[in-house]
Amino acid sequence: MKITLLGAGNLATQLGLALIQSKHEIVQVFSKTTISAGLLAEKLNSQPVTSPDKVVSGSDIYICALKDDAIQSVLSQLNLEKNTLIVHTAGSVPIDLLSNFTSRYGVFYPLQTFSKNRLCDFSKVPVFIEASDIQTLNLIKDLAHSVSSNVNELSSEDRKYLHLSAVFVCNFVNYLYTTGSDILKKNQLDFKYLIPLIDETAAKIHDMHPLDAQTGPAIRMDKTIINKHLALLSGDEKLSRIYTLLSEGIFSRRSD
Amino acid sequence: MKITLLGAGNLATQLGLALIQSKHEIVQVFSKTTISAGLLAEKLNSQPVTSPDKVVSGSDIYICALKDDAIQSVLSQLNLEKNTLIVHTAGSVPIDLLSNFTSRYGVFYPLQTFSKNRLCDFSKVPVFIEASDIQTLNLIKDLAHSVSSNVNELSSEDRKYLHLSAVFVCNFVNYLYTTGSDILKKNQLDFKYLIPLIDETAAKIHDMHPLDAQTGPAIRMDKTIINKHLALLSGDEKLSRIYTLLSEGIFSRRSD
Repeated sequence: MKITLLGAGNLATQLGLALIQSKHEIVQVFSKTTISAGLLAEKLNSQPVTSPDKVVSGSDIYICALKDDAIQSVLSQLNLEKNTLIVHTAGSVPIDLLSNFTSRYGVFYPLQTFSKNRLCDFSKVPVFIEASDIQTLNLIKDLAHSVSSNVNELSSEDRKYLHLSAVFVCNFVNYLYTTGSDILKKNQLDFKYLIPLIDETAAKIHDMHPLDAQTGPAIRMDKTIINKHLALLSGDEKLSRIYTLLSEGIFSRRSD
Repeated sequence: MKITLLGAGNLATQLGLALIQSKHEIVQVFSKTTISAGLLAEKLNSQPVTSPDKVVSGSDIYICALKDDAIQSVLSQLNLEKNTLIVHTAGSVPIDLLSNFTSRYGVFYPLQTFSKNRLCDFSKVPVFIEASDIQTLNLIKDLAHSVSSNVNELSSEDRKYLHLSAVFVCNFVNYLYTTGSDILKKNQLDFKYLIPLIDETAAKIHDMHPLDAQTGPAIRMDKTIINKHLALLSGDEKLSRIYTLLSEGIFSRRSD
């Protein structure tokens, strides 16, 4: 397919790379940031544009991978033919927003954490799709299947809960990795000690419900350890509050 | 070696299995809970005992894998020869505690999340050791090397920070997995959708510092999404507080 990418962030970068690997053509890459547009366009053998009115008609699909706040303003500045197919990639933006700009639209939401410089194996990324009509759905489905073996239809209503849960299991989890790293660094200890533990914690829930996988002082309400830990954190009110809240959460969700 | 296991919980179970696989002999398994002692002793081809005074002398090492609160009371009820080698496996208990019970003692702390019914590849588990004297250290080191290829000397002071960081990257992380699962279940969505995301979040920090791996609305301080998510959580004050605290934490630790 001939594809135009609106956006040049983490998601646009990894999706763009997956698309050209699947032999699609990226006609243009739009970003208002000249450097971002240029860097990604170069990677994708595409043309960079930094102004919405320079985005040309004629692509089979326009993939809008912009920040939620920017979607509306950029789309309203495009000057494309009617019936242009536009999809967005956002977890928490309802499909209906796109009906203001075209009659053929949809959602292409890849559920993954993307970084610009870490190549992603897109074939395993779950992609959640939605469309204005059945023909458009089939077209988006074909596109999704060309890059991923895990394609699912999902409503905007369900997608927002999926996005919320993803923030907990990915963004917040990564912040706890940062916190672990901070604690070790402060005591000149190497973060690599935690890697096997981090791996096993993630691996466990392939086979076990996380409620059954839970270990540690909070699930046993082992106050001796909890108080020792809070004493170690006593200089840091924010971390102490996080420790207490999450420990209470664990204890309140114990299964036995 | 001839080994006696004090404790029959998650850690004792997986360590015991690793020890017999490495051809050590488990002479006795102590637990005050008859069923636990019996089940683990059967797995380890060992003898169950439920009373501390039935623990016999003669083993090369006594591994105390009890809850922190139970260590002192159980050890004080043992009736063993002087100079018996005793180690504990606790993250937050200083080595000195053992000096009340014997003159040869140490710590054997495996940093992993163990569950009774999930077989653990112990060879990759980082083991942190400490001892009362150099001869004892060498003996504990030999034992550790017989089950793990990742053996490190660590002081009690450093070990408690390691334990604290482990609570963040494992126990709290697993609770966030539970929370993600709860959110999806409430909306009849399958937890399996999150598995590739969970895996990639853990895999990323093998190659990237977690600060560089951070993604999501909080690092961008994308208030539109954050407010949508808080609206979805509005019925749950505790989760709303966790969402807000962790989002603030992410934003305050942004690297750029």
